[in-house]
Amino acid sequence: MTDDFVLHERLAADCIMIDDWPLCRVLLMNDATFPWLILVPRRPGLSDFHDVEAADMPRFTAEICAASRALQAAVSADKMNVAALGNMVPQLHLHIIARFTGDPAWPGPVWGTAPAAAYEPTALEERVKVLKDAFKAF
Amino acid sequence: MTDDFVLHERLAADCIMIDDWPLCRVLLMNDATFPWLILVPRRPGLSDFHDVEAADMPRFTAEICAASRALQAAVSADKMNVAALGNMVPQLHLHIIARFTGDPAWPGPVWGTAPAAAYEPTALEERVKVLKDAFKAF
Repeated sequence: MTDDFVLHERLAADCIMIDDWPLCRVLLMNDATFPWLILVPRRPGLSDFHDVEAADMPRFTAEICAASRALQAAVSADKMNVAALGNMVPQLHLHIIARFTGDPAWPGPVWGTAPAAAYEPTALEERVKVLKDAFKAF
Repeated sequence: MTDDFVLHERLAADCIMIDDWPLCRVLLMNDATFPWLILVPRRPGLSDFHDVEAADMPRFTAEICAASRALQAAVSADKMNVAALGNMVPQLHLHIIARFTGDPAWPGPVWGTAPAAAYEPTALEERVKVLKDAFKAF
């Protein structure tokens, strides 16, 4: 199913690869300000949420829920934000963002608040490890 | 299933009732700047997307897709935005927003760009009619 799938170059540049799940590529947004996952269904030609084929939707929502629950548990988030916007990158990608009542964008959305602050190498290594451990439980 | 469901007062104040679908209450955000639906699953106690029970998820995603496709077709939108944020209103509600490359927030997200501009009565009547007609086809 992955033969025709190519990750959009902007997502490839902005994110760190975490894993390939049965349907989605799981990415970590390289922004240390917010714990922020991006799920990209590995299907060609998808743009909107409603473009996901009915046969894929149960798997898509299961992966969204698993990622959201795991990230929330891993970082003890106050609220999870889930969004498919895609105004800048047309390839369907789902944002899953852990929010805290004291984070810099709260209670607004995270987009456009500040330039992404890339992880320091050791912080990135630790975050990826925490996520991979968290995903094992879901 | 609706016995324990009470629409959050902020959503009631900001939106116009359109319909009750099998799972969700369908609302129109009273902001003439953006064609903007809000779907609220009529279940008590939901906050995050991942709180939707597995048994409800197929219906939830079917209603999301139907609303998104119908709204896009009704207004010839360039892109649809779908999001569950809930940082301000804790009751789970899903934004479905029709976007245009020339709209005031493009390509950013709509939240926080400007105060909502309430519909004029005749414009509201027309918008609700268009939506109800569009939903019949989905």
